[in-house]
Amino acid sequence: MARADGRTNNELRKIKITRNYLKYAEGSVLIEFGDTKVICAATIEEKVPPFLKGSGEGWVSAEYSLLPRSTQSRNVREAARGKQSGRTHEIQRLIGRALRSVIDLKALGEKTIWLDCDVVQADGGTRTAAITGSFVALVDAVSRIWGDSQKPFPVKDFLAAVSVGVMPEGVYLDLCYSEDSMAVVDMNLVMTGSGEFVEVQGTGEKGTFSQTQLNEMIAVGSQGIDILLDIQKETLGQLAWKVGREG
Amino acid sequence: MARADGRTNNELRKIKITRNYLKYAEGSVLIEFGDTKVICAATIEEKVPPFLKGSGEGWVSAEYSLLPRSTQSRNVREAARGKQSGRTHEIQRLIGRALRSVIDLKALGEKTIWLDCDVVQADGGTRTAAITGSFVALVDAVSRIWGDSQKPFPVKDFLAAVSVGVMPEGVYLDLCYSEDSMAVVDMNLVMTGSGEFVEVQGTGEKGTFSQTQLNEMIAVGSQGIDILLDIQKETLGQLAWKVGREG
Amino acid sequence: MARADGRTNNELRKIKITRNYLKYAEGSVLIEFGDTKVICAATIEEKVPPFLKGSGEGWVSAEYSLLPRSTQSRNVREAARGKQSGRTHEIQRLIGRALRSVIDLKALGEKTIWLDCDVVQADGGTRTAAITGSFVALVDAVSRIWGDSQKPFPVKDFLAAVSVGVMPEGVYLDLCYSEDSMAVVDMNLVMTGSGEFVEVQGTGEKGTFSQTQLNEMIAVGSQGIDILLDIQKETLGQLAWKVGREG
Amino acid sequence: MARADGRTNNELRKIKITRNYLKYAEGSVLIEFGDTKVICAATIEEKVPPFLKGSGEGWVSAEYSLLPRSTQSRNVREAARGKQSGRTHEIQRLIGRALRSVIDLKALGEKTIWLDCDVVQADGGTRTAAITGSFVALVDAVSRIWGDSQKPFPVKDFLAAVSVGVMPEGVYLDLCYSEDSMAVVDMNLVMTGSGEFVEVQGTGEKGTFSQTQLNEMIAVGSQGIDILLDIQKETLGQLAWKVGREG
Amino acid sequence: MARADGRTNNELRKIKITRNYLKYAEGSVLIEFGDTKVICAATIEEKVPPFLKGSGEGWVSAEYSLLPRSTQSRNVREAARGKQSGRTHEIQRLIGRALRSVIDLKALGEKTIWLDCDVVQADGGTRTAAITGSFVALVDAVSRIWGDSQKPFPVKDFLAAVSVGVMPEGVYLDLCYSEDSMAVVDMNLVMTGSGEFVEVQGTGEKGTFSQTQLNEMIAVGSQGIDILLDIQKETLGQLAWKVGREG
Amino acid sequence: MARADGRTNNELRKIKITRNYLKYAEGSVLIEFGDTKVICAATIEEKVPPFLKGSGEGWVSAEYSLLPRSTQSRNVREAARGKQSGRTHEIQRLIGRALRSVIDLKALGEKTIWLDCDVVQADGGTRTAAITGSFVALVDAVSRIWGDSQKPFPVKDFLAAVSVGVMPEGVYLDLCYSEDSMAVVDMNLVMTGSGEFVEVQGTGEKGTFSQTQLNEMIAVGSQGIDILLDIQKETLGQLAWKVGREG
Repeated sequence: MARADGRTNNELRKIKITRNYLKYAEGSVLIEFGDTKVICAATIEEKVPPFLKGSGEGWVSAEYSLLPRSTQSRNVREAARGKQSGRTHEIQRLIGRALRSVIDLKALGEKTIWLDCDVVQADGGTRTAAITGSFVALVDAVSRIWGDSQKPFPVKDFLAAVSVGVMPEGVYLDLCYSEDSMAVVDMNLVMTGSGEFVEVQGTGEKGTFSQTQLNEMIAVGSQGIDILLDIQKETLGQLAWKVGREG
Repeated sequence: MARADGRTNNELRKIKITRNYLKYAEGSVLIEFGDTKVICAATIEEKVPPFLKGSGEGWVSAEYSLLPRSTQSRNVREAARGKQSGRTHEIQRLIGRALRSVIDLKALGEKTIWLDCDVVQADGGTRTAAITGSFVALVDAVSRIWGDSQKPFPVKDFLAAVSVGVMPEGVYLDLCYSEDSMAVVDMNLVMTGSGEFVEVQGTGEKGTFSQTQLNEMIAVGSQGIDILLDIQKETLGQLAWKVGREG
Repeated sequence: MARADGRTNNELRKIKITRNYLKYAEGSVLIEFGDTKVICAATIEEKVPPFLKGSGEGWVSAEYSLLPRSTQSRNVREAARGKQSGRTHEIQRLIGRALRSVIDLKALGEKTIWLDCDVVQADGGTRTAAITGSFVALVDAVSRIWGDSQKPFPVKDFLAAVSVGVMPEGVYLDLCYSEDSMAVVDMNLVMTGSGEFVEVQGTGEKGTFSQTQLNEMIAVGSQGIDILLDIQKETLGQLAWKVGREG
Repeated sequence: MARADGRTNNELRKIKITRNYLKYAEGSVLIEFGDTKVICAATIEEKVPPFLKGSGEGWVSAEYSLLPRSTQSRNVREAARGKQSGRTHEIQRLIGRALRSVIDLKALGEKTIWLDCDVVQADGGTRTAAITGSFVALVDAVSRIWGDSQKPFPVKDFLAAVSVGVMPEGVYLDLCYSEDSMAVVDMNLVMTGSGEFVEVQGTGEKGTFSQTQLNEMIAVGSQGIDILLDIQKETLGQLAWKVGREG
Repeated sequence: MARADGRTNNELRKIKITRNYLKYAEGSVLIEFGDTKVICAATIEEKVPPFLKGSGEGWVSAEYSLLPRSTQSRNVREAARGKQSGRTHEIQRLIGRALRSVIDLKALGEKTIWLDCDVVQADGGTRTAAITGSFVALVDAVSRIWGDSQKPFPVKDFLAAVSVGVMPEGVYLDLCYSEDSMAVVDMNLVMTGSGEFVEVQGTGEKGTFSQTQLNEMIAVGSQGIDILLDIQKETLGQLAWKVGREG
Repeated sequence: MARADGRTNNELRKIKITRNYLKYAEGSVLIEFGDTKVICAATIEEKVPPFLKGSGEGWVSAEYSLLPRSTQSRNVREAARGKQSGRTHEIQRLIGRALRSVIDLKALGEKTIWLDCDVVQADGGTRTAAITGSFVALVDAVSRIWGDSQKPFPVKDFLAAVSVGVMPEGVYLDLCYSEDSMAVVDMNLVMTGSGEFVEVQGTGEKGTFSQTQLNEMIAVGSQGIDILLDIQKETLGQLAWKVGREG
């Protein structure tokens, strides 16, 4: 059975990555998963958090925010309220952790890569779009400071993320907001270019799920990730060859 | 003498207003003054601040934010720092005050119009772009709830804003960032469709200015406003006729 | 090969649940997973968050905190710093979500159950101990207000949680802190009494993991959960029979 | 036509400046514009904000606050609420900017002059009183550290501020609170001893204003400034000669 | 042996109470203990804190603040820092508690009396000056709303406070700042018009004190309180007769 | 007449001190005054607050917190609310001040001893239990870093605290919560092993007290302190001999 927007169960929405979306950032994209639109900007800062000072290692840190009117009803601006919500904290920790998994922090050296993920429009899957887009912005930023250096490129592997959900009608790939709000189980998968898992987060607030459903979600999600990885490679063009290059 | 980007002294940058930029907001635009890009979203909320409860009158309130990487070097995210800067407070108060000046708050009734101005790229003049763009988003939002109603349309007049500056070489219209940082005096003008002033804010932190210079800045700014008003009217098309309509 | 504390790979630490640990709370336990000690208190409040007012449904909300000297080096008191860390937000959201999955919020009615999880000593696995202990405190609290009522008991199923990790030497169950800091992959599993999953969170910040490793972690974790469920039942004694009772 | 308190349109309220009002501050005044009373204290600190470190230049920074019962009904104490209002931010930025315009920051050297403006009683025009009073406190503070030094005195020119408003009956100088709340347009003027403008801020929240009205407000305001400058000079006595002295 | 300013051990500084210091407050004084100057303003609000709603009883609440330049070196403005210090919290709790002890909260009815104590100059003993001055402001404020009512006057007794300290040279009354910083023990006494104690707070951070010293401090302090009570009575004039009047 | 729990007027509740309660802290106890239970942890940090840098002296700082369900009805978690209450500030300042009075800060050297007092169960007298327990934790912590050093031991004397109250039936020692809420006067006494006072804090919010009552409270409190000091000595065993040892 087809979905509201006519997709089949294991079909992604239309994915679009606009590279170099911002004038000033070292790397930036506008990534679109259907109507979900996220600006991902990568900034390279020549310092590290206190716990890494003098270690010779770098760090990757992410921040995430919804523009107030990215959502159906206006959500309060966190800067005005004076604190970030628990949801924001959870998502930005996930993005940072995911990206760090494919970075060789020693090879990077004592630098911090900031990833700013600002959601312009939120129609489900903002955190997975943010991870997938941030990866491209990050490669561009690292490439800009690496230039033609023969040192090993500190991005070890590709990285993409997608959501999957258990719906009454079966397992759906890449849920839009209206599906997400009806899903019994919601899973976010983050995987590398070599097919390994980085994060598997399955949550059954409205229900529980069996081993069989878990397996099916992972199978459907993996297929989606493969397509996202292809789109990233196409977007990066020549630069894609640098990823995983040993120097 | 021409400017860095080849403009004459009293020439605006390329202005572009993309209407209905966001899917969910009652009104929204992406406004561009050259490389300065601001998303303006208008939301209508069916309640008013405490001091207006039961008064029968409405309110207009604005919030402003720079995306962290809208600027040349990354600026700290205010939501993460837990408070908005003095500059942000000053700008959002200006935007709200300016828009209120052309709204008939009694005719609006007990509603609040929120204007969210999020700067995607900052190359000077973000506050004047935000005011000029918010006006269009606001007309769209009000129009959506007014429909074909015969009640007087609560937007009484057009409203646009522009910056002018005293440079060593003379008075320049619509400063970009590199000009702004060299300007001796910086003025922001907000004017209505009928040529009246709403705000005149001239600031000479790096120098002072004479009556003659004040007059010249106002003359040059007024010309810029006229062009912005024309662009707003063209953008709004048929809807432009509703502004100032007595019902 | 045995572990530092002599356990086999799939062996839990010594688990101890002290029921009615606090004098005033409607339900409370001190739960110990080896040296990890968490006080879980359940409070029943006769109101719900704004988004549920008038809905007839209840809510479950959790808060989590480390005592400053629960850890090897003192960690800053969040109340003194004025905000909770991202880690705290992430954990308390997980605990709340997990407990809600086994509560019939309609049957509960317009009440909020607060779960306060305060870590007295942190030797790894504090979030899984908190979930496992909170379940017992919650059953006691609900039981106290339900009394001999014939209405369906709003706790639908048992719930326990455990951590599993991929170590260089294989998959280990219930990591203590020294193991946790060496694990390549860290997984938290939350499961119900009927063997369904509620949360599967596998994270590979220091590495990635394959489908095979995922399966193994889930297998080892499920065994640990079974034992925790038995301990909960034994602890609750007669009260265990109420869980899942249809009225 | 005379005003409520019998003044003519272009007449200031009774101005009084009590020098050395505080025992410990390097410079301080109590300035009174009729019933408006503001304590202005100048403090010299031997360091500068981070962006000026090593530049050899100094800085001037202002803070502003209303005592809770300076106003007709008690306003909430900002320290208790935990944040400063947008109005406070706007005013203290204006005061700082205004004072910096007459200071030679290079001649000052790496020092910060703090201006604390605490409003004891608020009957309109607190920000213009704060600027006018702060100037005197600042000259005293700089003089104290300059002593008999032959270096150029870093205060380049005099500085005073006044408000003007468009009332139904015409343009009024130096509005008291009851007038201010009825004014259609409100303008604040900051000018130097040599008759140049530093800030021109005209705001028409309750209406708009024409070029003619703008000119009239500026003319009336300039006259008021002239009188304020005379009072400052008289207050400073001998010290007045140091202002603008080239060394 | 005489003290630095020539006082004898049990002599107060010059005390001065300026009544009706502020134009808008229901009651206000400027109280001076030598160079210590505190503005005390009493505001009557027609509501009570949540825990008293519907109880028929009123409340008295105090807030305290140091102006940044009331002290020898500038202290950071709490509104700018975003939180009040522990010292501020401790002092404002003391002031509130002290004043409540002489108010018949039932007779007051569901009103809150706010006492704002803002220290203009701090030369030791600001909290005791604040209590002594607030009492006068409070009587004025209550009197204003009580008018000629025959209901019992809700102020049951007079109230004053003073500091005493153990110095190397003996027990001193009403310490100024330079003495306070050398005192081994510091005591604050709050007493009523009928000679009873309301607060006895003796603190020996730099040393300890014996029963004998405690007795001596209390004896010396009580004498000081007697004089302060006389000054309050003289200041209040006719109004003094209302205090403790049964109606 | 006996009290609710059968104690005589000058009888302490059952006191229990469990030493080394926490695995990681340099010193820690669980102290119980009847149902009041407080975890006191001492941490030694190799740095001092800014005002002591380079002075060669150390510092002692305390933090205090109620677990949300330590009390009869749940109290809001201060970390979630984002600020500590005035009561918390007042108590932690008292604990820090009290402990500093028996420490030779010069002998300690440039170290900070943090005392974390977390109330697990609150049945009255939490601040006096916190002081009494913190003393033991502090001795253990100092002893751990002092080892067999021949330098003077920086703990100069024993220190304990107790509450006393004026009840309608007379003066009671060591009030439990139900007594505390009925007491007319509440006093906290902190005394040293040599019988000197460190803090005397008597508060009569619900009434006032006479010189005679003050004397009686001090007499009864002193007796309680003596017993607490004996219990501390017994708990510390051999270590007790180090206190006050000149090296």
